[in-house]
Amino acid sequence: MKSNQFRLDHLAKLVQGQVIGDADLLLEGLASLTQANSNQISFVNSDKYLDEAISSQAGALIVTSEMQAQLNQHNNFIVVQNPYLAFAILTHVFESKTVQRGIEATAVIDPSAMIGDNVYIGHYVVVGPHAVIGSNTVIHSQTKIDEYVEIGEDCFIDSHVTITGRSKIAKRVRIHANTVIGGEGFGFAPYQGKWNRIAQLGSVQIGNDVRIGSNCSIDRGALDDTILHDGVIIDNLVQVAHNVQIGENTAIAAKCGIAGSTVIGKNCILAGACGISGHLKIVDNVTLTGMSMVTGSILEAGTYSSGMGLLENSRWKRTVVRLRQLADVPLTKLVKRIDDMQAQLESIESTLKLRK
Amino acid sequence: MKSNQFRLDHLAKLVQGQVIGDADLLLEGLASLTQANSNQISFVNSDKYLDEAISSQAGALIVTSEMQAQLNQHNNFIVVQNPYLAFAILTHVFESKTVQRGIEATAVIDPSAMIGDNVYIGHYVVVGPHAVIGSNTVIHSQTKIDEYVEIGEDCFIDSHVTITGRSKIAKRVRIHANTVIGGEGFGFAPYQGKWNRIAQLGSVQIGNDVRIGSNCSIDRGALDDTILHDGVIIDNLVQVAHNVQIGENTAIAAKCGIAGSTVIGKNCILAGACGISGHLKIVDNVTLTGMSMVTGSILEAGTYSSGMGLLENSRWKRTVVRLRQLADVPLTKLVKRIDDMQAQLESIESTLKLRK
Amino acid sequence: MKSNQFRLDHLAKLVQGQVIGDADLLLEGLASLTQANSNQISFVNSDKYLDEAISSQAGALIVTSEMQAQLNQHNNFIVVQNPYLAFAILTHVFESKTVQRGIEATAVIDPSAMIGDNVYIGHYVVVGPHAVIGSNTVIHSQTKIDEYVEIGEDCFIDSHVTITGRSKIAKRVRIHANTVIGGEGFGFAPYQGKWNRIAQLGSVQIGNDVRIGSNCSIDRGALDDTILHDGVIIDNLVQVAHNVQIGENTAIAAKCGIAGSTVIGKNCILAGACGISGHLKIVDNVTLTGMSMVTGSILEAGTYSSGMGLLENSRWKRTVVRLRQLADVPLTKLVKRIDDMQAQLESIESTLKLRK
Repeated sequence: MKSNQFRLDHLAKLVQGQVIGDADLLLEGLASLTQANSNQISFVNSDKYLDEAISSQAGALIVTSEMQAQLNQHNNFIVVQNPYLAFAILTHVFESKTVQRGIEATAVIDPSAMIGDNVYIGHYVVVGPHAVIGSNTVIHSQTKIDEYVEIGEDCFIDSHVTITGRSKIAKRVRIHANTVIGGEGFGFAPYQGKWNRIAQLGSVQIGNDVRIGSNCSIDRGALDDTILHDGVIIDNLVQVAHNVQIGENTAIAAKCGIAGSTVIGKNCILAGACGISGHLKIVDNVTLTGMSMVTGSILEAGTYSSGMGLLENSRWKRTVVRLRQLADVPLTKLVKRIDDMQAQLESIESTLKLRK
Repeated sequence: MKSNQFRLDHLAKLVQGQVIGDADLLLEGLASLTQANSNQISFVNSDKYLDEAISSQAGALIVTSEMQAQLNQHNNFIVVQNPYLAFAILTHVFESKTVQRGIEATAVIDPSAMIGDNVYIGHYVVVGPHAVIGSNTVIHSQTKIDEYVEIGEDCFIDSHVTITGRSKIAKRVRIHANTVIGGEGFGFAPYQGKWNRIAQLGSVQIGNDVRIGSNCSIDRGALDDTILHDGVIIDNLVQVAHNVQIGENTAIAAKCGIAGSTVIGKNCILAGACGISGHLKIVDNVTLTGMSMVTGSILEAGTYSSGMGLLENSRWKRTVVRLRQLADVPLTKLVKRIDDMQAQLESIESTLKLRK
Repeated sequence: MKSNQFRLDHLAKLVQGQVIGDADLLLEGLASLTQANSNQISFVNSDKYLDEAISSQAGALIVTSEMQAQLNQHNNFIVVQNPYLAFAILTHVFESKTVQRGIEATAVIDPSAMIGDNVYIGHYVVVGPHAVIGSNTVIHSQTKIDEYVEIGEDCFIDSHVTITGRSKIAKRVRIHANTVIGGEGFGFAPYQGKWNRIAQLGSVQIGNDVRIGSNCSIDRGALDDTILHDGVIIDNLVQVAHNVQIGENTAIAAKCGIAGSTVIGKNCILAGACGISGHLKIVDNVTLTGMSMVTGSILEAGTYSSGMGLLENSRWKRTVVRLRQLADVPLTKLVKRIDDMQAQLESIESTLKLRK
């Protein structure tokens, strides 16, 4: 058995599933239904992929018992309640990991910094005075950990990340490449036609198990801190302005922007490219569909949307012409007028009948 | 008196304000009304924060004289005309600054580069041939100053910034982490189904007191230069394409994008995530609200907007269905028809009355 | 003749054009019509620039024969069919190039990496184990080429780029500063209120002649690869999520975002800041205008748009009020009712006439 091969029953045990078929089957990879070969295991995420499952070359399939009953072309299964979760767990088994430990000789670490055990610090990393880096944390090459920044245990920080502004980062946090944490918030007091910079005195607090994608900007607070609570997950190219607070387990997709001092609740989901104005409150369990434009607080859980969607260009032009006339067309009054006219008409008709 | 403590009368003098209460009171921090303790000073930005001010634990408050009259629960004040401006000024007093000077041994500086007095150049900075860096300028670790780039005096450049394309940067400019100045503009000539790259021969000119946030892209011009005039302030994740010109003191919030060759006037304000097409002209004193979509020139000062705002999802769906019918509903003709019918109705009714 | 001077007939030959005027004229730069001086050559892109051409100080002009006939104020021309293409070609002649070759002593290259001939690898570049870098490829300072990444011949990679996730990059690819290729896709399985990270096992494949701007994020696939086919060009600050596929010669302007598993065809053009949802299919030859919001597949070639465009703020407010009433205004039924009432009215009127 090669090092990257696993028996079907071993994989089933990892996901608390039941084996159907050849428990000894050796599998050496996880693949999509359409790409998998007979040495690989795949998964069926929902009924709409049953056709792909039927024609898949995968050596084994992760399915629900209902799906399994419809896949008699296949012999080897792991049966679970939640195939997607089982798949998520198995990705970690098949991930090729290079575990690096130690501090590269080219890293520049200030003598006053405190470095935990068993860390990896890559080439050309710079760690400033009084910084703290927890045990088992991995920091990839060329990253900058500025003075007084604190990073907890078991974190993963990729290359070219800048962490500054005295940010405090808890445990098991993942920060992807080229992201900036703790940059200066965009605060200026206008006076006599010029912008007077407000030095940003707050910091950033990041909870446990937070995940931040690449090329994000998470600014430090003006006076109080910007706060990402435990379990928040953030995709790429996201802007989080100064003094924003984001509640536990809220998920934010790529290209969202959240303006200053807005407070977002727990378990919210922001689809891609949403824009949220500053100084708003969004309660727990709010879902925003893609490109939503939020200019007021959201005080009730639910799903919210904006945007007109896509139109063929010539139809879009006609639609926009009409849309822009709306300001001059009192729609509800129009409906009222039509109702009134209909009543008038009926009255006239009955008058006419009476006089017949 | 500790090094980070200041007397109330000293702080008042810095903001040209008047002390009421204990002029000798020692203050060691600036905080928001809700977070401040008795060793800290806070400020009241407008009347709507008076309730927070009343219950604040702050040792002293920065207020207008009108506010002061309503805050008899408090004893110590600095009275000014513009509390927000006073706060902005005092942030610089309480900012913890580590003044670094000198050139780190790990910085690679081409012998032909000209470096001013009293600079700081951080670890692993690379400064290319013929670059110029002005006196008192601070360049943080791992930044790249490419050949022929010129940076003036008293600038602040954070980590992982890339400045290339022979950009010329004036005095007191601040550029935050991971921003790219002078990258190649997106210019391609289509020919026979392929894109032929146009080498970008222009540069970037950045005026005095300009501020650029993190993760921004400011491209060099195609032939002429991209120009940011004095006092322009730009937030994070902003795109400024080749040959854009931005007038003095214009403010651009996060996630805006300005396409090629557009010229924006002075004292404009672009809220977050606005998109502006290329080759447009926007005059002075234009304000765009968040997520505005600008596809034509703006020739009159004023405030402009776009977007339908947010709707609860099921209502949004109904709205969009109707919206997409608009192309087939001649709104203004409809109003005309209703007017005509009403006239007809009235004429019928008077006829009926006459015949009574 | 100085090294950066070229004879008019030499330039004409490069673009397969015909000289009119002084073939020996020496030119030392390419400039826009309004900025050019008598030592420079300029080009006229279309008839709408004829006025600028007439008053231009350029020593020579690149024009069509039709344009030339209208420019008798000028003496020296290169006549071609496509002046813009000729301009694109000549930008490469006038570009000041510093050809760097060799590996800087400060670059850290793993002994197992394979480096081609005649490369340039800049200061503080880190090249990981088993990476491959093709001949003539230029990698600027402080860039990170992670383990197992493969880069072909004649590529250009600017500073602070992070290439990871075992990405495979073909020939003549250009990647601008601070871009991240192969970062982890945003994949999480929700379970019991938490987000369970899905390790991303796919990679990124980038074809020949692809161009990617600065501050972009191109994520690695979850199981299969993210794929950019030959000739794709991408501007700055663009998000390409895991498992996206982009067809040959498709152009994507700044600030677009493409969500996971969407497949885009060949020869498409996405203007700036478009957002495309996940798991969609967009066929060949689709053009999206700026800020388009795409939530469904596009199965027919053509131009598509969304957004209401810009309105003066007070008019926008009235428009949005009406727009938000649309959900309660059955537009097409309203038209039907008006038609019905008109019929009724006409019937009443003829009744009245009969009874006269």
